Amino acid sequence: MLPYNLDHVAIAVHDLDAAIAELRDQYRVEPISRETLADQGVEEAMIAIGGSHIQLLQPLEAASPVGRFLAKHGEGLHHMAFAVPDIEAALAHLRDTGVRLVDETPRIGGGGNRIAFVHPAAFAGTLVELVEVGK
Amino acid sequence: MLPYNLDHVAIAVHDLDAAIAELRDQYRVEPISRETLADQGVEEAMIAIGGSHIQLLQPLEAASPVGRFLAKHGEGLHHMAFAVPDIEAALAHLRDTGVRLVDETPRIGGGGNRIAFVHPAAFAGTLVELVEVGK
Repeated sequence: MLPYNLDHVAIAVHDLDAAIAELRDQYRVEPISRETLADQGVEEAMIAIGGSHIQLLQPLEAASPVGRFLAKHGEGLHHMAFAVPDIEAALAHLRDTGVRLVDETPRIGGGGNRIAFVHPAAFAGTLVELVEVGK
Repeated sequence: MLPYNLDHVAIAVHDLDAAIAELRDQYRVEPISRETLADQGVEEAMIAIGGSHIQLLQPLEAASPVGRFLAKHGEGLHHMAFAVPDIEAALAHLRDTGVRLVDETPRIGGGGNRIAFVHPAAFAGTLVELVEVGK
């Protein structure tokens, strides 16, 4: 179960437009997609940097997970995502190693990809997302 | 001033060996390098994931920047690093846009690369490192 790419690093922001403008001014980068994911309670923008991405997450409401993150921590790094070839095999392997999962089965994330979150208790307080790209 | 790669995402950990073992068990990945950077007060391990890396940072002492981060926040995501073709041009551009820098001039980081940190006040509370790889 080898992740073949660091698909993205996600950053929680209060204002997606302001964050996009800051990255544009500072690094001359632009979003390649922008999407509202109602079931995750976020509007997200993806910015390609080399073979990886920065994902900006603005909560749709204060009571959403990203809204609660912002209330507790302020803006900042939220999670990292590994691209895996087979998300069900990856979840089965993690379950076998005794790792605590947020999502026992995959759900649909940005771009229609299948995703699942691994609990931050599993590794260094770090929320990890698995992404099976393009299936 | 376009970053051509997301060079790494860095994670602060209490115990480098334990973190490496967890990533090995969970994701079948191994460090490609391990290095003590006395002037930054860290021991670091780099783990390649596709064209990017996870950088694990263990403080050498509690009074170091990463030691203070751990005392305040616990383990977790610490910064992200952009690979840039010309770090002095990148710093000059950021200075021109009014961005607050941690390092006004480059210093030497892991692998002998020239690096500089941008203050988290510049963008979404996120500490950003610039890396000029292999010069």
